[in-house]
Amino acid sequence: MNKINIAEKFTLFTEEWTPKVIAESNGQLVKIAKGSGELVWHKHDHEDELFIVFKGQLTLQLRTEDIVLNAGEMYVVTKGIEHCPKAEPDTHFMMIEPSSTAHTGETVSEITVSSEQQERI
Amino acid sequence: MNKINIAEKFTLFTEEWTPKVIAESNGQLVKIAKGSGELVWHKHDHEDELFIVFKGQLTLQLRTEDIVLNAGEMYVVTKGIEHCPKAEPDTHFMMIEPSSTAHTGETVSEITVSSEQQERI
Repeated sequence: MNKINIAEKFTLFTEEWTPKVIAESNGQLVKIAKGSGELVWHKHDHEDELFIVFKGQLTLQLRTEDIVLNAGEMYVVTKGIEHCPKAEPDTHFMMIEPSSTAHTGETVSEITVSSEQQERI
Repeated sequence: MNKINIAEKFTLFTEEWTPKVIAESNGQLVKIAKGSGELVWHKHDHEDELFIVFKGQLTLQLRTEDIVLNAGEMYVVTKGIEHCPKAEPDTHFMMIEPSSTAHTGETVSEITVSSEQQERI
């Protein structure tokens, strides 16, 4: 594989809440996404989800608290925990999660992007 | 868990080539390390190793080529591939790898830090 410049990868798309796969490691996919506004409440029963923010501010709303992540901050949403990400305009973040992870868990909305639809860039 | 500020975690230690565990996700450990100079040639037969550089320059020497990573760049060393990391002074990087991953594979040197010795910060 070639090395990956993360900022350069973010220049390749404009869609929001549309994860793009940039690498794979030990059966987990490294995905990047842009966000603005709110996704939907959902959970992943079997997968932890690692978030790292590169630009802007991503808030991981949990039922118990809000985790506010700025650039350079990370958090792991443990499997089974309901969450609803929301983001300031033009927020850039990375997710690392097993390839089995459904975008919005069992919650399917207009905004949901199936794993098959998650483009590799 | 609390959110993790990655830059702040780097202020908590000074040792080089001494991975510190900052999070766990899906049985994989998120580790950060500082480097300067060269580690040793080694491989991990069963684990891919994901590197992300946050500061400085980390070169992943492979037998076939050198992968030169600057801040904001990443690479996955596939299982079984021999590699020898070397770094510019004060380089900061992250590794994400299964908890089973031995620091320098089957190559044990003075610089090797066993999994049990890899502190959680």
